[in-house]
Amino acid sequence: MRLIRLMRPPVFADVQAAAERLRGHAHHTPVLRSATADARAGAALFFKCENFQRMGAFKFRGAFNAIAKLSPAQQRAGVIAFSSGNHAQAIALAARELGVAATIVMPTDAPAAKLAATRDYGGEIVAYDRFSEDREALTRRIAEERGLTIIPPYDHADVIAGQGTAALELFEEVGALDALFVCLGGGGLLAGCALAAGALAPDCAVFGVEPEAGDDGRQSLRAGRIVTIAVPKTIADGAMTTHLGELTFPIIRERVRDVLTVTDEQLVAVMRFFAERMKMVVEPTGCLAAAGAFASAPQWRGRRVGVIVSGGNVDLAACAGWIGAR
Amino acid sequence: MRLIRLMRPPVFADVQAAAERLRGHAHHTPVLRSATADARAGAALFFKCENFQRMGAFKFRGAFNAIAKLSPAQQRAGVIAFSSGNHAQAIALAARELGVAATIVMPTDAPAAKLAATRDYGGEIVAYDRFSEDREALTRRIAEERGLTIIPPYDHADVIAGQGTAALELFEEVGALDALFVCLGGGGLLAGCALAAGALAPDCAVFGVEPEAGDDGRQSLRAGRIVTIAVPKTIADGAMTTHLGELTFPIIRERVRDVLTVTDEQLVAVMRFFAERMKMVVEPTGCLAAAGAFASAPQWRGRRVGVIVSGGNVDLAACAGWIGAR
Repeated sequence: MRLIRLMRPPVFADVQAAAERLRGHAHHTPVLRSATADARAGAALFFKCENFQRMGAFKFRGAFNAIAKLSPAQQRAGVIAFSSGNHAQAIALAARELGVAATIVMPTDAPAAKLAATRDYGGEIVAYDRFSEDREALTRRIAEERGLTIIPPYDHADVIAGQGTAALELFEEVGALDALFVCLGGGGLLAGCALAAGALAPDCAVFGVEPEAGDDGRQSLRAGRIVTIAVPKTIADGAMTTHLGELTFPIIRERVRDVLTVTDEQLVAVMRFFAERMKMVVEPTGCLAAAGAFASAPQWRGRRVGVIVSGGNVDLAACAGWIGAR
Repeated sequence: MRLIRLMRPPVFADVQAAAERLRGHAHHTPVLRSATADARAGAALFFKCENFQRMGAFKFRGAFNAIAKLSPAQQRAGVIAFSSGNHAQAIALAARELGVAATIVMPTDAPAAKLAATRDYGGEIVAYDRFSEDREALTRRIAEERGLTIIPPYDHADVIAGQGTAALELFEEVGALDALFVCLGGGGLLAGCALAAGALAPDCAVFGVEPEAGDDGRQSLRAGRIVTIAVPKTIADGAMTTHLGELTFPIIRERVRDVLTVTDEQLVAVMRFFAERMKMVVEPTGCLAAAGAFASAPQWRGRRVGVIVSGGNVDLAACAGWIGAR
């Protein structure tokens, strides 16, 4: 997608502008505290709860910001996205909110609940066979035929800037932090949050957390270039990406202290903690940052640590099974 | 308990004083919104989420306020409470926070998880056989022997004032409301919230919501006196009370528009909605107010409606079973 390669990398001012654009549309999500979590970590933990964001994940921020920034002509023509996860629902809902038509390219075997949710939010679904068709090629073809603008899930300046508003709100509410943990898939949320941290809490150490089975982010930081891996097997379905983006990687390399990995078992333990002790439903990907924070807690004893809880869109039966609540 | 009969009924100034006392100890819980809930109700719903309160329920507010108001000598001697539910944990945690010894009288067959949680919070448990012993008599005897102060679960001016801070925070955050729905067991939360509404939003219609199987509150309002029923069979274990209190009833009679009832099936539907759409774990009793609000929504079309989500302490396996997530 050549257009993206020519994009100006986002800066903090873009995150601030995105926050203005999102006002009255995105939820200003709460920051929750837990004495039990603090005692366990030996640190003061601040959980920014994007599982309470509209459509259940931070993705609404980037999607809304990107679509809101399109020209009137582009908005009249409509947008298109490929996704079988939260990005699909985010684009569908943000587009409806802005009166823009949205087409979502989803695999024919996507979970019925996700197809229904995307349709509920007003998205037109184009189904493809994931074994015989290339979804990116299909998306480009439809976009060209219909004159639609492609909104990619993470490698887009306006998407990155939108996601960064989660950390911006966190810093505005609780002040400076010593460390900030953010989940890492394609890097949109991490890059955006790192921009906010750089401006609002320059001494804050920012960490990405990815599934052990999909450690392309850590490999990329070590190698100094974008490393591509096979699709990882993990319950963190929002972090099953195979590589960072051309826009997200340079920001992460410059601004992120390190990338940590956690196992699916660690994610399940955190998911259970969130449900039992903090009374919230968090999807596996949403548990990455907290799992990383708990694992490296000894380093942050007595310090102030931010944790982005990225989303809550999990099948409740699967969730109950994982955490043993059945 | 003669002492209680002599108590001055609480007024709004007591709720304000309680809010000062709770600052820095209780969580200022978030008010969550849901576009889906609003669409379903045809009204603007404001959910005050006490399931995110310390120990998982509003009960911490009243317990802390009551213990904080004791004289230094009373605090040194310690407090005692009887409860197999949230009040036990609230007293144990609030007492620990204030450096006061707490004794909790609980049935020998109380769920292991509740016994463990109460012990975790530092409470000393006195077990009794619920089939052969009268817990109130036992509590009074121990209190006299050891010089402990009894903190009852709802019929106490400082407990009522503490619970009212939930509604005080809600009104302070979102402004006036046209209606406010509050769960009703013994009436501590409802009476306290009604005091706050009376002062901060005098035109707001306040409703109590109780389980259909335990409609002593509605019966009492109709009869103009406290009606006592048998222990009701309902999944709303926090509302299995048999009668309102001598302090709570007059406030409710004076300030509450009406008491509604809902079935266990309605509670389960709301519990599922909270988990699936709002990503939060809410105990059956915590679903009462929302179930009442949804049921009477046609009356409040286009209006602003507050809902107190009272708690989240539910066995996750039971919860998963009820909502079909297994």
